[in-house]
Amino acid sequence: MKKALVGIIMGSDSDLPVMNQAAEMLETFEIPYEITIVSAHRTPERMFNYAREAEARGLEVIIAGAGGAAHLPGMVASITALPVIGVPVKTSSLNGLDSLLSIVQMPAGVPVATVAINNAKNAGLLAAEILGVKYPEIRQKIKEYKASLRQMVEEKAKNLEEVGPDSYLKSFMKS
Amino acid sequence: MKKALVGIIMGSDSDLPVMNQAAEMLETFEIPYEITIVSAHRTPERMFNYAREAEARGLEVIIAGAGGAAHLPGMVASITALPVIGVPVKTSSLNGLDSLLSIVQMPAGVPVATVAINNAKNAGLLAAEILGVKYPEIRQKIKEYKASLRQMVEEKAKNLEEVGPDSYLKSFMKS
Amino acid sequence: MKKALVGIIMGSDSDLPVMNQAAEMLETFEIPYEITIVSAHRTPERMFNYAREAEARGLEVIIAGAGGAAHLPGMVASITALPVIGVPVKTSSLNGLDSLLSIVQMPAGVPVATVAINNAKNAGLLAAEILGVKYPEIRQKIKEYKASLRQMVEEKAKNLEEVGPDSYLKSFMKS
Amino acid sequence: MKKALVGIIMGSDSDLPVMNQAAEMLETFEIPYEITIVSAHRTPERMFNYAREAEARGLEVIIAGAGGAAHLPGMVASITALPVIGVPVKTSSLNGLDSLLSIVQMPAGVPVATVAINNAKNAGLLAAEILGVKYPEIRQKIKEYKASLRQMVEEKAKNLEEVGPDSYLKSFMKS
Amino acid sequence: MKKALVGIIMGSDSDLPVMNQAAEMLETFEIPYEITIVSAHRTPERMFNYAREAEARGLEVIIAGAGGAAHLPGMVASITALPVIGVPVKTSSLNGLDSLLSIVQMPAGVPVATVAINNAKNAGLLAAEILGVKYPEIRQKIKEYKASLRQMVEEKAKNLEEVGPDSYLKSFMKS
Amino acid sequence: MKKALVGIIMGSDSDLPVMNQAAEMLETFEIPYEITIVSAHRTPERMFNYAREAEARGLEVIIAGAGGAAHLPGMVASITALPVIGVPVKTSSLNGLDSLLSIVQMPAGVPVATVAINNAKNAGLLAAEILGVKYPEIRQKIKEYKASLRQMVEEKAKNLEEVGPDSYLKSFMKS
Amino acid sequence: MKKALVGIIMGSDSDLPVMNQAAEMLETFEIPYEITIVSAHRTPERMFNYAREAEARGLEVIIAGAGGAAHLPGMVASITALPVIGVPVKTSSLNGLDSLLSIVQMPAGVPVATVAINNAKNAGLLAAEILGVKYPEIRQKIKEYKASLRQMVEEKAKNLEEVGPDSYLKSFMKS
Amino acid sequence: MKKALVGIIMGSDSDLPVMNQAAEMLETFEIPYEITIVSAHRTPERMFNYAREAEARGLEVIIAGAGGAAHLPGMVASITALPVIGVPVKTSSLNGLDSLLSIVQMPAGVPVATVAINNAKNAGLLAAEILGVKYPEIRQKIKEYKASLRQMVEEKAKNLEEVGPDSYLKSFMKS
Repeated sequence: MKKALVGIIMGSDSDLPVMNQAAEMLETFEIPYEITIVSAHRTPERMFNYAREAEARGLEVIIAGAGGAAHLPGMVASITALPVIGVPVKTSSLNGLDSLLSIVQMPAGVPVATVAINNAKNAGLLAAEILGVKYPEIRQKIKEYKASLRQMVEEKAKNLEEVGPDSYLKSFMKS
Repeated sequence: MKKALVGIIMGSDSDLPVMNQAAEMLETFEIPYEITIVSAHRTPERMFNYAREAEARGLEVIIAGAGGAAHLPGMVASITALPVIGVPVKTSSLNGLDSLLSIVQMPAGVPVATVAINNAKNAGLLAAEILGVKYPEIRQKIKEYKASLRQMVEEKAKNLEEVGPDSYLKSFMKS
Repeated sequence: MKKALVGIIMGSDSDLPVMNQAAEMLETFEIPYEITIVSAHRTPERMFNYAREAEARGLEVIIAGAGGAAHLPGMVASITALPVIGVPVKTSSLNGLDSLLSIVQMPAGVPVATVAINNAKNAGLLAAEILGVKYPEIRQKIKEYKASLRQMVEEKAKNLEEVGPDSYLKSFMKS
Repeated sequence: MKKALVGIIMGSDSDLPVMNQAAEMLETFEIPYEITIVSAHRTPERMFNYAREAEARGLEVIIAGAGGAAHLPGMVASITALPVIGVPVKTSSLNGLDSLLSIVQMPAGVPVATVAINNAKNAGLLAAEILGVKYPEIRQKIKEYKASLRQMVEEKAKNLEEVGPDSYLKSFMKS
Repeated sequence: MKKALVGIIMGSDSDLPVMNQAAEMLETFEIPYEITIVSAHRTPERMFNYAREAEARGLEVIIAGAGGAAHLPGMVASITALPVIGVPVKTSSLNGLDSLLSIVQMPAGVPVATVAINNAKNAGLLAAEILGVKYPEIRQKIKEYKASLRQMVEEKAKNLEEVGPDSYLKSFMKS
Repeated sequence: MKKALVGIIMGSDSDLPVMNQAAEMLETFEIPYEITIVSAHRTPERMFNYAREAEARGLEVIIAGAGGAAHLPGMVASITALPVIGVPVKTSSLNGLDSLLSIVQMPAGVPVATVAINNAKNAGLLAAEILGVKYPEIRQKIKEYKASLRQMVEEKAKNLEEVGPDSYLKSFMKS
Repeated sequence: MKKALVGIIMGSDSDLPVMNQAAEMLETFEIPYEITIVSAHRTPERMFNYAREAEARGLEVIIAGAGGAAHLPGMVASITALPVIGVPVKTSSLNGLDSLLSIVQMPAGVPVATVAINNAKNAGLLAAEILGVKYPEIRQKIKEYKASLRQMVEEKAKNLEEVGPDSYLKSFMKS
Repeated sequence: MKKALVGIIMGSDSDLPVMNQAAEMLETFEIPYEITIVSAHRTPERMFNYAREAEARGLEVIIAGAGGAAHLPGMVASITALPVIGVPVKTSSLNGLDSLLSIVQMPAGVPVATVAINNAKNAGLLAAEILGVKYPEIRQKIKEYKASLRQMVEEKAKNLEEVGPDSYLKSFMKS
């Protein structure tokens, strides 16, 4: 197995259903990754070590997801010089607005590349775009992926235009 | 000078005009304190060391203020077993709502005793109340302080009742 | 049974499923507590008496939970010199944002140590940290508790790293 | 001087510039009132006594203004059976959204008749409307007041229509 | 049947489950009321006529509930000199924050006595408190109602203290 | 079939259950329309072409629905001179507040006629009102539609007045 | 002077500095308009009459601006079959979020074409776009206006590219 | 001059005072950049061409700033496969919350790496971190920059500890 280029970390295993979508996106692009749990609050030393050693271990991008007072992405970004992508995980009371503000509103000097609430898929894609700066073959795959999205929308549009909205709702959609 | 019981820290010296009010409150109660700058994001190791050594150095309560994606109070609370009081500092764009949510919405296992936005005065008073659990003379001073607040309100009320609102606005208020 | 050191109160018995988690946390630390219903709005005199007599009855910390226009923590804090911890209970319409602001935004002179929405668990832990200032044996138990949290995260991380995210989601998680 | 029918209270004299507008409105309707400072947090006993004795002292409506974690209107409403009108005073950090939610989101059993942020003028008018239920002469004055508002708008409209918006902006408006 | 003193109106019959709670509260106080549908947006003339004729028909207080861009309470208040109580009905997208702001933020000259989101029960109670200014027997019933609330809380508190939180949760609560 | 006057587009087929209500409303007014999927983000060229050719193809109004960072309505409005109606689609995390602000807060020079969150029905009706400026027969149908709404409310009101709220809730309502 | 096609109304003359920008935009397109004050709350009958007679008087579009609990646009839309454009005017406490929600969140059956907070300029432009459906010469002018905006941006871009950001900030910008 | 690696674009020259800070940060790292105005709404074709040609012209990262319904970053990201960094520019009415949500809440398939409101400085730094993945000399400079930030905080901390907060406020701070 190839050495991981992207490290996916999350504050709690309850974030895994969301964060695993970043992993799946990276698999689409055949980008080697690792995924584990690193809690800024419950395992601060583990977090420190993870961030400090990431570059030496060969990681080139870190994706960090957390909810509520979400400190993991920002703290990792404060320690490493690697680009850090933050995924605000949706919370039960404030719906992830707390997670979003805790991650995106970083002070000058320590940016976190923040994506939409719960959108770990986009975190994976953004990691690929960043790696695409260095690796032309990943850039190429992103272009193919974007083309496939375009094609999928166009097919759906064609279906909808052909059968009309009422039939489309009955035949092509589940909920 | 007596050894500090309360450590007041803040993420940036731009927070000092707010956080110094915690110091002034502690002086009211003659509680020895120290005050310095510790940035979770710009000096993560300094923050780690500060939090790890606080108890051994004799601190009994930590007051931490920060704005925006305010990680300092929560990160310090993750490292020490001392009670940590968080002061959300008002920000220019989101008025401190980001600071408040970043500080108060901590996950189970790592509480931060959060006070109102910019209310470092109350952080100082809360530190005194916490120390009052152990030191009866501080508890006594808090009672006197509360009595003085009550008296001040009652005097203002008496003035207002005597002169009426229009005169009061002219004579007793500045802005 | 030992005399209660912590008083847990709530505005309504509908808050009990949340507030009981503070009680459970205190039991973890073997801290004696009492738990009852005190409504600032429906039983204002009972609230007054509770707050006024708390210190004399031997209570050292009060945990107060309430939802909506949540006045209980702040009113109790206005009467007693004990530290008061406030738990904003989640509400059906505004998800607890109203509870949070009603509890945390106290004026200078009357702090409430506010924790996250519905996070009574952290209120219990914060009460323990405050008592830990006075009682070394509680401080020691908090350190052990924090170590156990760390260990639990590390074990979960190890499992996740070993089995991979897909297996982990199937084997170790329920919802 | 006639006995006060309306009691205007506020948590701090810093609320007086806002709350005095309720007094001015009551003067328009020649309704006798009293105005003073009663802090739920700094003078809880004074607040209790004020609320408990209000009815016996002849008050028929209470107007209470407060900012931030604004507990005064709700606490007074919990003690008296008189109708209580709440004025959320604008705050520097959250612009009065905290005051509004702390006042309006009262639990079943203890309503506060809430008006707009800083709109003490409307609190005075609402008090008049409530007294108008009992006193026909006040009802009559409200009708005249509403007619005067209507006339004022109609005159401004006539002016604007005659001179056009550019001249109107120069001649009739200051800021 | 006695002539209605309170008119309860709502913008849509979908608001009836909420608004009927105002009716039930008025029945508790034996206050005669009427209840019907009046939409500011779909039946503007009906709304005009209702508001214009309310006083002559003997109504003394109007309770108006509406959701979203909730204009009914404010428009009725603009036409009648009776006190108008507004109930912000919870909405599916913004949870009633839109309803609340649309009702409470009225301009100077036209107050609406706003209660909490969905709290029609309190609207009924506030109507009773307003009528209590004129009718001593209603005032008396409010005092009895408040006493019964107090007693209910005290009984629940006694039960909780006797059986402890775990048994209470099993025996006395359903969800 | 007559040439479409209104083009209904949406960013994703998951928006179809909402956006189809615009189509149904247009059918009520017998206004020919077309409906399809055009994603600003996944098919930017398709979006460009759609907007650029809309006028030449005979469309007179465009209705565009999207959720989250909802760019479709504003981008289409930037390209065409036709009036564009925007429907903010409710989102799972922020309930459509993000969609609403992304659609309505357009800069000077490029307006989008925004309707309520998820209210595609009103988008259809607004399109009809706009076409009613040109086509008197559509204007006439809108008047009839408004009259039917009025009549429906009046019938419901009559029913409620006759049977009373309790029976009405049992007989006339489902949820 | 030609008969007005667009009626611009506002709730108060304090809204005139904002709403006059709609007038200026209409003058750009040489569209005849009228502008006056119509308060839903202070002059409800005037509002009713204005809305009811607008169509017969030759108006084809109505632009209504209001702030706070902004009922004017929605109430006018409930009475007329003309398209109504709503301008949420910025407020001092909630910055126009209350105005926005009060205007945009209309119930099914009564749409208001809402533009951005304080963006009366766009309301004028949207009115022109709506009239452009009927009047080809207005459509033509909109295209020219859009082209002029494009050209202005391109010129600024060219300047910025030539002189660089530092010089541009000094030479071309004032604040 | 070396070929630009980073393209900085903004929707309006009023965003230049903010966005120029990204340029200054890139100069710190000696990273060649270009800066210009590209409006998604006023110059959609220019935006399209800019995004489509960026990669071929040698750009490796794009920084896009915009305010309100901020579509520029997301639209550029929909067209190019380069990583796009979004800067939400603070707005006068909603303080940039609208800009933030319009930029960060992108749908799956089109990420924008969002930084804090008005924090173009961090956008420049994040661009450097992304380029650091490919260019070791930039990575090295980032490490030196982070070290300098750390040193600056430590010096300020030392000063504050030496002179105390009152002297520090007088001597070292301006506002």
